[in-house]
Amino acid sequence: MKKITILGSTGSIGTQTLDIIGRNPDRYAVEGLAAGNNVDLLIEQAKQFRPKTVCLSNKALADEAMPHLPAGTKAVYGDEGLVEIAAGTDADTVVTAIVGSRGLPATLAAIDAGKSIALANKETLVTAGHLVMRRAAERGVTILPVDSEHSAIFQCLNGERREAIKRITLTASGGSFRDRTREELHGVTVAQALNHPNWSMGAKVTIDSATMANKGLEVIEAHWLFGLPYDQIHVLIHPESIIHSYVEFVDHSVIAQLGMPDMRVPIQYALTYPERRATPTDSLDFAKLSALHFREMDFDRYPCLRYAYESGRTGKSAPTVFNAANETAVARFLNGEIAFLDIESVIATVLNRHEIVEVPDVAAIADVDAWARRMAASV
Amino acid sequence: MKKITILGSTGSIGTQTLDIIGRNPDRYAVEGLAAGNNVDLLIEQAKQFRPKTVCLSNKALADEAMPHLPAGTKAVYGDEGLVEIAAGTDADTVVTAIVGSRGLPATLAAIDAGKSIALANKETLVTAGHLVMRRAAERGVTILPVDSEHSAIFQCLNGERREAIKRITLTASGGSFRDRTREELHGVTVAQALNHPNWSMGAKVTIDSATMANKGLEVIEAHWLFGLPYDQIHVLIHPESIIHSYVEFVDHSVIAQLGMPDMRVPIQYALTYPERRATPTDSLDFAKLSALHFREMDFDRYPCLRYAYESGRTGKSAPTVFNAANETAVARFLNGEIAFLDIESVIATVLNRHEIVEVPDVAAIADVDAWARRMAASV
Repeated sequence: MKKITILGSTGSIGTQTLDIIGRNPDRYAVEGLAAGNNVDLLIEQAKQFRPKTVCLSNKALADEAMPHLPAGTKAVYGDEGLVEIAAGTDADTVVTAIVGSRGLPATLAAIDAGKSIALANKETLVTAGHLVMRRAAERGVTILPVDSEHSAIFQCLNGERREAIKRITLTASGGSFRDRTREELHGVTVAQALNHPNWSMGAKVTIDSATMANKGLEVIEAHWLFGLPYDQIHVLIHPESIIHSYVEFVDHSVIAQLGMPDMRVPIQYALTYPERRATPTDSLDFAKLSALHFREMDFDRYPCLRYAYESGRTGKSAPTVFNAANETAVARFLNGEIAFLDIESVIATVLNRHEIVEVPDVAAIADVDAWARRMAASV
Repeated sequence: MKKITILGSTGSIGTQTLDIIGRNPDRYAVEGLAAGNNVDLLIEQAKQFRPKTVCLSNKALADEAMPHLPAGTKAVYGDEGLVEIAAGTDADTVVTAIVGSRGLPATLAAIDAGKSIALANKETLVTAGHLVMRRAAERGVTILPVDSEHSAIFQCLNGERREAIKRITLTASGGSFRDRTREELHGVTVAQALNHPNWSMGAKVTIDSATMANKGLEVIEAHWLFGLPYDQIHVLIHPESIIHSYVEFVDHSVIAQLGMPDMRVPIQYALTYPERRATPTDSLDFAKLSALHFREMDFDRYPCLRYAYESGRTGKSAPTVFNAANETAVARFLNGEIAFLDIESVIATVLNRHEIVEVPDVAAIADVDAWARRMAASV
């Protein structure tokens, strides 16, 4: 019986993780569930899965939830509660599925506590890859990717040697506006931007997919996860999202991972690794695919991706700025404050104004993050 | 320094193996080279690679070669010579690249002598998979596939557990007549049949590719190589030959191996396994691929494939009959004796007339093989 704690249980990855756990009650027990503000869904999840602890974003929400929780489930709250639920329970694996940079301290605490990390919170590696990977190595903790692209690369590297890698390629669907020119992006609405062609994901990730900022975050994440320089990390537009990513080896043999776009496959793999078990997803029927297409990534069409590579290559505090500016800009777009194309100009402006911090620790990352958010909120 | 013996050095796989060896003179030494009747090329190869022993198909050819061989290279001949060169040299790895069923005794002898086998002679497993795999297991000998499809599956299974396999799928280009209906196959010429769209291969394999008998032999080979029942071995038409084959696991995750159609990649992998080294082949540029297509295999369009599955499922001596009848029929077609569509009717007739031998040993396999050839030569 594997004990699981989920940070971000009411989000897209969180609910799909619980779907898998619910289908395998003999294999998994839920130790802790952390949500943000969705009290009702968290209560429902707590009733079904009976975790020892739940966490909400503040005391008021925790108090609201308390009377409805099953006997034996306690409620904690806030950033401290998040650290407690990540590190202070008996969980074997912590699924870090909080969107945004809030997940970092809890993830570091879980690593320090020796938990396996099923990593869906890509901002953790983007902002603090140098800290996270070093601590994971020191603690002998495995970081298992949940993102479909990183899970694909991880699967393609099974049984292979790191030195044999020539390059990895992350595929990108192109997002909700992939068939529009830059000119046709003026005045697009939030609803249009949220209409992703292939994947069912949260709002923030869906917008990031349309701007390609998401792919940029994934590139930086891959840099840390697989220990590869940016020159060995490529991106390619593949509208069908069937090839989830691939590795080219030095002999020019390519190993790719494919499947239906269903996050439950990579989520479950992070839980069962190195084993594989049946999933509720559909089998991939190649004969029913009309065709698979590919096109070169266009860095002029998707400047956010260029900023991500530049930030990644600069390293230090630059990726934190990229990520925080992007998060703030996306929130402003979703709130109707700025236009879709303003997301990229906000990021560019904030990156330009940033003075690099050489080797940021957690406190410096938080400072840089806060500075970038303030700046991104006002430009 | 790895010592290599090549059975079938003047054929397509043999010359490509020597191309790889020639590019890596610090890694590989040639211990033995066996050819059929191509004395001139064998002499040239012997001068370049200075093997200890060469083999030709008969004494006259060996005598003809003798005066032209480098000092220190001896010549043997015939089936006995083939066994000697396969098992009696210091080779670490024997590349079995003889086309047809003649390779069996030499391959078994090499296994008994503890050589690693780089297997390109698929008829070995088709006719005697039960003997070859048992002896290889007993001797702890590794059988490394050279066929692009089997190498693909082998690579996709790196680091994976056999129990996790849901099914494997061998891709087929469809061969030189893939865009013709059955009606349009009447009266096709040998030259047309030899014009394969993707792969540069020997004549026999190219015809087998057009009839899909080749894919049938590969299915039976895969059954033995990967220990899978026929229900778990699928075939799919993929005209571009970019996805060389793939494995679907129980979690519906698909791992595929892709690359340019260049046999030097799987050949080299069989020599370097488990390492990978640079190859002279081109990198696969996905953005330059217009699209990848797939279509369901049509067993009515390709009855030879149906006969192969039926023979494989029957097992025992049936695959030997399928293979021998096919070899003879293809030779007759290449000689202009029969029409293209007669290949399949010859196979069907011979299979129908065959009385199954339960657990054929090498002698029984040879008898069945000879019977099937006589029969296929006369119907």
